[in-house]
Amino acid sequence: MQNDYTQMWTDLGLDLQAHDQLLEVLGQGYEQVFMSQANRPEGMAYFDFVMSEVHGLRIKELMDAKAEGRKVVGSFCVFVPEEIVLAVDGILVGLCTGADFATEEVDKILPRNTCALIKSAFGFKLGKVCPYLESADLIVGENTCDGKKKSYETLAGLVPALYVMDLPQTKSLRARELMQAEMKRFFHKMEEISGVTIDAARLKKGIQLVTEKRKALHRLNELRKNDPAPISGLDALLINQVQFYDDPVRFTASLNKLCDELETRVAEGKGAFAKGTPRVMVSGCPMAVPNWKLPMIIESTGAVIVGEESCVGERGTRNLVSDGEESLDELMEALVDRYFKIDCAIFTPNPERLDHVKEMTGRYNAQGVIHYSLQFCQPYQTESIPLEKSLENEKIKTLRLETDYSQEDIEQLRTRVEAFVEMIA
Amino acid sequence: MQNDYTQMWTDLGLDLQAHDQLLEVLGQGYEQVFMSQANRPEGMAYFDFVMSEVHGLRIKELMDAKAEGRKVVGSFCVFVPEEIVLAVDGILVGLCTGADFATEEVDKILPRNTCALIKSAFGFKLGKVCPYLESADLIVGENTCDGKKKSYETLAGLVPALYVMDLPQTKSLRARELMQAEMKRFFHKMEEISGVTIDAARLKKGIQLVTEKRKALHRLNELRKNDPAPISGLDALLINQVQFYDDPVRFTASLNKLCDELETRVAEGKGAFAKGTPRVMVSGCPMAVPNWKLPMIIESTGAVIVGEESCVGERGTRNLVSDGEESLDELMEALVDRYFKIDCAIFTPNPERLDHVKEMTGRYNAQGVIHYSLQFCQPYQTESIPLEKSLENEKIKTLRLETDYSQEDIEQLRTRVEAFVEMIA
Ligand code: SF4
Ligand code: SF4
Ligand code: SF4
Ligand code: SF4
Repeated sequence: MQNDYTQMWTDLGLDLQAHDQLLEVLGQGYEQVFMSQANRPEGMAYFDFVMSEVHGLRIKELMDAKAEGRKVVGSFCVFVPEEIVLAVDGILVGLCTGADFATEEVDKILPRNTCALIKSAFGFKLGKVCPYLESADLIVGENTCDGKKKSYETLAGLVPALYVMDLPQTKSLRARELMQAEMKRFFHKMEEISGVTIDAARLKKGIQLVTEKRKALHRLNELRKNDPAPISGLDALLINQVQFYDDPVRFTASLNKLCDELETRVAEGKGAFAKGTPRVMVSGCPMAVPNWKLPMIIESTGAVIVGEESCVGERGTRNLVSDGEESLDELMEALVDRYFKIDCAIFTPNPERLDHVKEMTGRYNAQGVIHYSLQFCQPYQTESIPLEKSLENEKIKTLRLETDYSQEDIEQLRTRVEAFVEMIA
Repeated sequence: MQNDYTQMWTDLGLDLQAHDQLLEVLGQGYEQVFMSQANRPEGMAYFDFVMSEVHGLRIKELMDAKAEGRKVVGSFCVFVPEEIVLAVDGILVGLCTGADFATEEVDKILPRNTCALIKSAFGFKLGKVCPYLESADLIVGENTCDGKKKSYETLAGLVPALYVMDLPQTKSLRARELMQAEMKRFFHKMEEISGVTIDAARLKKGIQLVTEKRKALHRLNELRKNDPAPISGLDALLINQVQFYDDPVRFTASLNKLCDELETRVAEGKGAFAKGTPRVMVSGCPMAVPNWKLPMIIESTGAVIVGEESCVGERGTRNLVSDGEESLDELMEALVDRYFKIDCAIFTPNPERLDHVKEMTGRYNAQGVIHYSLQFCQPYQTESIPLEKSLENEKIKTLRLETDYSQEDIEQLRTRVEAFVEMIA
């Protein structure tokens, strides 16, 4: 980090000692996982910088924005519409849920059998080490999986302002009505906390910013179709993670710049890995910062990850809000349509996700799919069994893995991934 | 069993050998757990008989009813309204989910981290040992917890006819609308499969039959307030379990007869246990036949269970459909009101359940609450932690236990229960 942010962290109520420890572990992990990679594009320097300042400069920016009266909103799920937050000049940040912290304290208030992602959210709160959580004016939860849905009842007592979005469990017409109503409620909540009245121009602006971000991510994905892949899966994942924290305009510009570089690479036949490197796709639960364990294992066994069917990946970004709407009502309908398409495993049934995995496998020319689920994640784990069967029926090799954020199973995972990569190569 | 039902079981497609084994284990378990109890009311003989004929005479009755064109509907949840099934002269049976079966096969299609109740439903199906599952014309699932919601997608491929009720996750006005719509959809589904048109008189009759059953159960509960408790918790649980299988009219009459006997006992100061026996309440996940493990442990450590805050218990039966409605619309509204009150942990938030536990503790004069949750049951486990805290704050001693259907933890559970009973005594 460039500057001394101690005062800022103190003001936010962080536990400085614990926070220092966290930053040190994070920094070391980042060095090992990211900086050691060969053939990295130069444009990754921007993302390295963002990560190095993730608790520093970016938080400073949030504090400055707050001083101007802008609102910071924290979320745990891609169902929370950034477009509406931007429409009130707010800032939406995805909350870090990719590492264990304060596990002893967490185990006192959550069941042991809770997924690592949820435990992480609580650990960062209880351990007082997340400046995003502490700077947020509103934390938004959602009724998705049982684990999140029920644990928000407890989180409500730990944070100053928790707002919970209700969500349907099916894709019926009535379910869409619920999503529509909840989008409207969120719209009014944003107006309320910001004091800004959202008109069509504001919402259009919000939609446009997010669409440009998503388009830049699509451009990145498009480039990953090539063999050799111009960028590692680890770096691509990092970009997908950074988009949850970074300023959307700056992020989009930086990503487009990186894509320019990747285009040149592709034209020159250069890649992050050699041509012919086995190509795999990862599908499953979201991987939040700093959860890089499985991708690191996969790419260190001599395969390249070419796509992520994940909320930190294509599931979260593939759909765009339809263009050309003008009135506020039309814009809101377009938003509802867009978010209602997300094929999270919390929906029943959820055939679109299987279709998407198959389509991605073809599009990215992947030789196999690694299904990643967090331990105790009922929705993704239950879905993964018929998903695997269906993929295998179409001769798409699939490896189902279940893990958490501990380091204990690394060797075991590595053995299984190695055998899989050998088989598909 | 009185008769030879081999032909009937063969016709139903049961695996006779596996089924024989199951019946033997069940019979032995029943002997050990129920028949060994001292001071049992005579009226329990009826329930013993029902249990001994649970795969025999009762199935014969179902087959005879089917031969007359009546429909048999199987369900896994107390949200499925028996009133509507009875309105078309159908028979609703709760499906046995209280024992492990065919675990190896189950583990191939469900995640390891699935609760025992769900695994049991699949085990009975895959092992071909449940004549209820096999005789049902329709199996009804419901979007409750993630485990059930997602596993029904797999169950749909294993049974001839699965119908899934959607359910809300909150108790909002919109949520009630969903329940109302789903009740109507179920109403029409019942009309469709039975060919019967439901009029107000038919629905009123269905409501009346179920209300009488519930009132008989309330009467039983009322009697359990006494010290000495006139009936063991094990026997009371059995009665609550049997009501999911038995003919409602016969069940109600038999239970009322038992209650007459219990009234005499109370008047004479007689009980199943001595006066002053420590009184505990059990709260949590449903205990389906033949899941008697924890109650057996509790009552063998010298405490008596005086109430069950459970779907196989008061959560499932305490609310009555309001009386005096006449038109079909009014009757349906009354039904929706009644079912919408169920305080299952799948709802968020779910404060009514905590209130109910507290109220029950006082009403039954219980000295402590044992919270029972199945391993991997996210909704009840997550809810149990604030629930325990809240009860302890009101000086209600609480023991949180987590278990499954295996026998391995019996000694460990016994040790914990013994210590708890000693503390509250
Ligand atoms: S996996 Fe589902 S619940 Fe999780 S972030 Fe994605 S959409 Fe939200
Ligand atoms: S990983 Fe699964 S259990 Fe964990 S928060 Fe996401 S959907 Fe819920
Ligand atoms: S605990 Fe909930 S899901 Fe289970 S039977 Fe009861 S109401 Fe249904
Ligand atoms: S015990 Fe819990 S996890 Fe199992 S079916 Fe019932 S609500 Fe679902």
